[in-house]
Amino acid sequence: MIVDCAVYEQGRRREGELALDDAYEAAREPGAFVWIGLVEPSELEFEAVRREFDLHELAVEDAIKAHQRPKVEVYDDSLFVVLKTARWVDEPQFVHFGEILVFVGDEFLITVRHGDTDLHDVRLAMEDRPELLGCGPSAALHAIVDRVVDDYEPVVGHLDAAIREVEAEVFSPTRSNPAEQIYALKRAVLSLDGAIVPLVEPVAALAAGRYALIHQNLHSYFRDVHDHLARMTGHVVSFRELLNSVLTANLTQASVRQNEDVRKISAWAAIIAVPTLISGIYGMNFDHMPELGWTLGYPAALALMALVCLTLYRYFHKVGWL
Amino acid sequence: MIVDCAVYEQGRRREGELALDDAYEAAREPGAFVWIGLVEPSELEFEAVRREFDLHELAVEDAIKAHQRPKVEVYDDSLFVVLKTARWVDEPQFVHFGEILVFVGDEFLITVRHGDTDLHDVRLAMEDRPELLGCGPSAALHAIVDRVVDDYEPVVGHLDAAIREVEAEVFSPTRSNPAEQIYALKRAVLSLDGAIVPLVEPVAALAAGRYALIHQNLHSYFRDVHDHLARMTGHVVSFRELLNSVLTANLTQASVRQNEDVRKISAWAAIIAVPTLISGIYGMNFDHMPELGWTLGYPAALALMALVCLTLYRYFHKVGWL
Amino acid sequence: MIVDCAVYEQGRRREGELALDDAYEAAREPGAFVWIGLVEPSELEFEAVRREFDLHELAVEDAIKAHQRPKVEVYDDSLFVVLKTARWVDEPQFVHFGEILVFVGDEFLITVRHGDTDLHDVRLAMEDRPELLGCGPSAALHAIVDRVVDDYEPVVGHLDAAIREVEAEVFSPTRSNPAEQIYALKRAVLSLDGAIVPLVEPVAALAAGRYALIHQNLHSYFRDVHDHLARMTGHVVSFRELLNSVLTANLTQASVRQNEDVRKISAWAAIIAVPTLISGIYGMNFDHMPELGWTLGYPAALALMALVCLTLYRYFHKVGWL
Amino acid sequence: MIVDCAVYEQGRRREGELALDDAYEAAREPGAFVWIGLVEPSELEFEAVRREFDLHELAVEDAIKAHQRPKVEVYDDSLFVVLKTARWVDEPQFVHFGEILVFVGDEFLITVRHGDTDLHDVRLAMEDRPELLGCGPSAALHAIVDRVVDDYEPVVGHLDAAIREVEAEVFSPTRSNPAEQIYALKRAVLSLDGAIVPLVEPVAALAAGRYALIHQNLHSYFRDVHDHLARMTGHVVSFRELLNSVLTANLTQASVRQNEDVRKISAWAAIIAVPTLISGIYGMNFDHMPELGWTLGYPAALALMALVCLTLYRYFHKVGWL
Amino acid sequence: MIVDCAVYEQGRRREGELALDDAYEAAREPGAFVWIGLVEPSELEFEAVRREFDLHELAVEDAIKAHQRPKVEVYDDSLFVVLKTARWVDEPQFVHFGEILVFVGDEFLITVRHGDTDLHDVRLAMEDRPELLGCGPSAALHAIVDRVVDDYEPVVGHLDAAIREVEAEVFSPTRSNPAEQIYALKRAVLSLDGAIVPLVEPVAALAAGRYALIHQNLHSYFRDVHDHLARMTGHVVSFRELLNSVLTANLTQASVRQNEDVRKISAWAAIIAVPTLISGIYGMNFDHMPELGWTLGYPAALALMALVCLTLYRYFHKVGWL
Repeated sequence: MIVDCAVYEQGRRREGELALDDAYEAAREPGAFVWIGLVEPSELEFEAVRREFDLHELAVEDAIKAHQRPKVEVYDDSLFVVLKTARWVDEPQFVHFGEILVFVGDEFLITVRHGDTDLHDVRLAMEDRPELLGCGPSAALHAIVDRVVDDYEPVVGHLDAAIREVEAEVFSPTRSNPAEQIYALKRAVLSLDGAIVPLVEPVAALAAGRYALIHQNLHSYFRDVHDHLARMTGHVVSFRELLNSVLTANLTQASVRQNEDVRKISAWAAIIAVPTLISGIYGMNFDHMPELGWTLGYPAALALMALVCLTLYRYFHKVGWL
Repeated sequence: MIVDCAVYEQGRRREGELALDDAYEAAREPGAFVWIGLVEPSELEFEAVRREFDLHELAVEDAIKAHQRPKVEVYDDSLFVVLKTARWVDEPQFVHFGEILVFVGDEFLITVRHGDTDLHDVRLAMEDRPELLGCGPSAALHAIVDRVVDDYEPVVGHLDAAIREVEAEVFSPTRSNPAEQIYALKRAVLSLDGAIVPLVEPVAALAAGRYALIHQNLHSYFRDVHDHLARMTGHVVSFRELLNSVLTANLTQASVRQNEDVRKISAWAAIIAVPTLISGIYGMNFDHMPELGWTLGYPAALALMALVCLTLYRYFHKVGWL
Repeated sequence: MIVDCAVYEQGRRREGELALDDAYEAAREPGAFVWIGLVEPSELEFEAVRREFDLHELAVEDAIKAHQRPKVEVYDDSLFVVLKTARWVDEPQFVHFGEILVFVGDEFLITVRHGDTDLHDVRLAMEDRPELLGCGPSAALHAIVDRVVDDYEPVVGHLDAAIREVEAEVFSPTRSNPAEQIYALKRAVLSLDGAIVPLVEPVAALAAGRYALIHQNLHSYFRDVHDHLARMTGHVVSFRELLNSVLTANLTQASVRQNEDVRKISAWAAIIAVPTLISGIYGMNFDHMPELGWTLGYPAALALMALVCLTLYRYFHKVGWL
Repeated sequence: MIVDCAVYEQGRRREGELALDDAYEAAREPGAFVWIGLVEPSELEFEAVRREFDLHELAVEDAIKAHQRPKVEVYDDSLFVVLKTARWVDEPQFVHFGEILVFVGDEFLITVRHGDTDLHDVRLAMEDRPELLGCGPSAALHAIVDRVVDDYEPVVGHLDAAIREVEAEVFSPTRSNPAEQIYALKRAVLSLDGAIVPLVEPVAALAAGRYALIHQNLHSYFRDVHDHLARMTGHVVSFRELLNSVLTANLTQASVRQNEDVRKISAWAAIIAVPTLISGIYGMNFDHMPELGWTLGYPAALALMALVCLTLYRYFHKVGWL
Repeated sequence: MIVDCAVYEQGRRREGELALDDAYEAAREPGAFVWIGLVEPSELEFEAVRREFDLHELAVEDAIKAHQRPKVEVYDDSLFVVLKTARWVDEPQFVHFGEILVFVGDEFLITVRHGDTDLHDVRLAMEDRPELLGCGPSAALHAIVDRVVDDYEPVVGHLDAAIREVEAEVFSPTRSNPAEQIYALKRAVLSLDGAIVPLVEPVAALAAGRYALIHQNLHSYFRDVHDHLARMTGHVVSFRELLNSVLTANLTQASVRQNEDVRKISAWAAIIAVPTLISGIYGMNFDHMPELGWTLGYPAALALMALVCLTLYRYFHKVGWL
């Protein structure tokens, strides 16, 4: 489905609707380029675009199937860029991924969106910066990559918060076992890693001016994106290591808590066992047991039991078993 | 055993059967190449082929023995490519591996299959694309490598599903211990890693145009295969890390469940111990124990026991030990 | 907020206050440079500076937002350096981070401080070494980087001490569980790693004379800083490995201690169970139990119980269970 | 001790014994080279050889002391190659290592063997291939390296089998604890790693034609050895990871088995505790306990106890605790 | 403190004492160089040396403060080399480190020792090899580096022995918990790693002839040192992995031993519980309990108890719980 198709001239959007059929001619005009936005196109829908702009069969196949790895590929005189978008959701998966695939040529930019993604805001924001937009399609590419990478930041922030939460739970006295949550976070972090890390090197190449298609004014802007990616990567790497440690710490806590339980249980067992022994002693059938004849023998025995229980209770309390 | 032997001219298969003895001459004709398919050939069976096409002794030895590491090797004017095929099976091993070894020259392609592999479909599919087949033997090589790598995808998908299943089991309340399954998956993932990872660099070399034998029209097709391999590698690496985490998580769950058991057991022990103590008290032989003379002493004692049991039961239920 | 603005000529600070408006002209004079120090400037406050010294939009954005990764970036004829300062605090976080961002040009040095940082001492120390200061703004840059890196040393020292403390606690007989502290140290070490490691390569580049802006007399000084960073990195890497080991060791200790507890508890249980059995025996109602008729039967039974308890106690003491 | 000394001319061994003193002259003849084989020579024994062939002091020292790391070193116009041989033995160490050190010059090959090694078969096999032997001393070097590397294969195979055996034991219901065996395998794998991995790069260099001493016909033969080494390395790396996982899995199994034991023990404790409570109840001394007067009271009580035991037994059996 | 100051000419030490003041002139003579040995000099003591030989301020600072990372640095026409010496001590730290810092110029060698180090033997050994000493100061540098690296060997040997000892303890039946020792060894190994690993690359550079100061005859000697370092590095890396495994194995052993204890304890508990139940049964107060009236009832009951205990004991012995 084509959702937006526009011509940009000297950094400004030309007024009015543009039919796909006119896009190719519009792109040919000097100083102009078209941006065609598609959403999960079928092979048929994409065919016309492919033919007009002479896109490479393999890139088109990738764009329709999606589920690609983030990458930047050169095809003759065009670039094909695959980006994974990430959005925070709550449990159980934490992160939702979408995919944006971009074909960039000298006179065109074709975006293909899959899943839960949005580019309308990017277009509007970009149209507010005519000085950049004047650099041509690579300015639009930068705007898209920049947005996708910017959107990783809140996800990383939420992951950080979720990890801190799970840490707090591990070390809290509530005795819960957040192993499943830790594991789910691990999965989410690994997925995010798969979205971010493969992009680092290609974006560095965009920033280093290795592609003629990228306007030289944009190099430092791409370097900024690269820097951003490097920062995200650093966070993700440290998340992985933290989650490994928290998993081991959680195991330790489970072990220590079991120890506490065993001690508490044992203390109560002792508190019951000793009066049971006393009652056993006074239940013996010896003919000569003077205490049995005492008028206060029974209450004295009960008092002895109570005293023993109390003493033991205090003792166990003191040594921290209760 | 020779299973198929055919000449391809201008991207089309020449009609009729081709005897091995005629293959060499056919290969010499301009614009033509032969594809000879063998299955687990003996040294003797292979000897004729080796002599006709002047294959290198070491490569031939590898092709007959199989159990090679995936690789691409250059011998003078030919390439020798080793591929591991993977197929999903159910437990206990999860993945079955086969091996395809390919000799590629200017005018020939010789495939040697070992184990549970198939190339018939590849041949048919390739014969449907004369425009690629016209590029010569390297087009056939691409078709084979592409198929082998494509076939990793369902294996990776099944592994993913199996890992998610085992995760679900670890975190389920069923108290099963899937350690053995986790371990078997680890083994399977490591084997798959051994099939995929050594191929990444050689395929990148095929895509980068480092070998004159590879027709230039095929470079971007090999890059597509490389991209595919890189994606698979990413999955395999993350599987390894996930399986390590799930192994630790499983240990934690075992520990936490033991804790729950110990608490449940202790609660029941307490519920039995207290009435035992009461019965001990009324079993004492003091002369003066007023309760013993009461008409309702016995039922009262029983009632006390029942009350204590109930109270403890409720208490333990409330604190979550039962 | 501008906190200090000064002109340096031939390695000496020019007397008197300098208004920001005069700074630009002062910087133009041959052999002179200005150092403008700002603290958490708002976008508005920074605007004048940006315009005067023609700083790049992206670097300025970084400088105002802070929370950057340590880096050195080249913008046309200026360098942009991001540094993380670290300061030891006590629990719960151990390390506090600040940020210093530096713009260096041929005739100016602009520092932007965020968080708990200080540069006044650096300025004074630097003004005491006119021979270095005469090398221009890169001498001031060196003074800042050197100070920031020097300040990592006490942090690393404190971390070392804290790790040794936590080790001592793990292996002490006090039965405490410092898992939370170990984890907090892990977090602190990872954060410090994020401040130090990204700086190693850029500082090596400063030392290797890759930037014309860095006066050649300063190369060996930057190499010294690099060496310092490498040493810190070595410590941080070994801290990570030690903390992983100490986490496992702590788990082992918890397990071993539980074992000791279980044995101690069991020993006491046995010491109580045996006299309980004896009291049960003499509580049996057989008509012919000669001991029951003995005058000394009861004290003998009590003595037997005491003897059994003592024997068991000694035995368990000997085998180390008590 | 010199064990064999022979001249090879045009790929054939010259008939008759050769005294060491004649070896140097023989080596000088065009198209000929000598192979001198020594076993654990003393410094004195080696001195003559060293002088005749002008070997470098440091290489000689290494050759006499042995316990070197596998390596290939260039000394002026000769190569010095250190190889570790490996042989499978049964427990407790699994792998025995020997050492072969080779000096290769234009006209000579001197081998020094240490420990449990053998080269006689290599010599015989090599003498059967005059076409290779005609390439000079580097053909003999290849024959030796090839044999040493080939001999790793059965060791790797045995390790694989031993690891699978230990896996089977970990997951078997026999409750054995093969931790010590796992650890011993880890040690063996690390030792083998130390023999194989340092050789990978030097052999790649031999294959790449970086040394003039290596006849160009042998390059693809050394590449074959390199390929073999790479395959072994892949196995060793995966063994290390598998053994780590199996160590953790073994810990899990120990934990799970403890859990089973605790549950079984607790079930039996409950089965004994309930009839004990019943006996306590009927041991109470209340005046009015109607059951006590019944003729069938006692058998009824015993029956009740038996019934309770049976019911509990069945219940625990059903829930899997027994 | 200056401990030795000597002139070397044509590979021989000039007779007689040399005052520091004369050293500079002596160094100027063609074919001669001085070696000045200092021990923990104060800044003041070092000042004269610094001035005479024009040493760089930063290197001097390092030499006085010590606690540097091993490194080789170039300053104009001199090298500055930092070495860590290691010596085995017994527990608790295992390894003691010292530091030797060397300034090497064309005509001088200045050594600064810190901590428990010695160079007297090196000097004597070196003076015995005039043919090397004739190569100038770099021969002395080689002698020092060689000795420092040689001295790592016994330390590595002791570590190996200590690790084997701790392994033996982990797998012995003595039930000790050597976690603390394992951890201390880990610390020692990491420290040794910090002394050895940073030296590998700089020594490779010395061997590769990258510094004009190093006489070309010494290149292969430095390569020998490098080889030695590489071997040590291999050991240290494998020690780290072994210690990680042994830590996990120790945890497993603790867990397995706890399991054994729990079973032993439970067996004894059962052995006591059953006769207690029997005594409870014969303590019941039923009017009609025929056994109570039997003359041999009491001894029969005791015999029954003994029989039950014996049977249980034998059973538990058979199943391995006792």
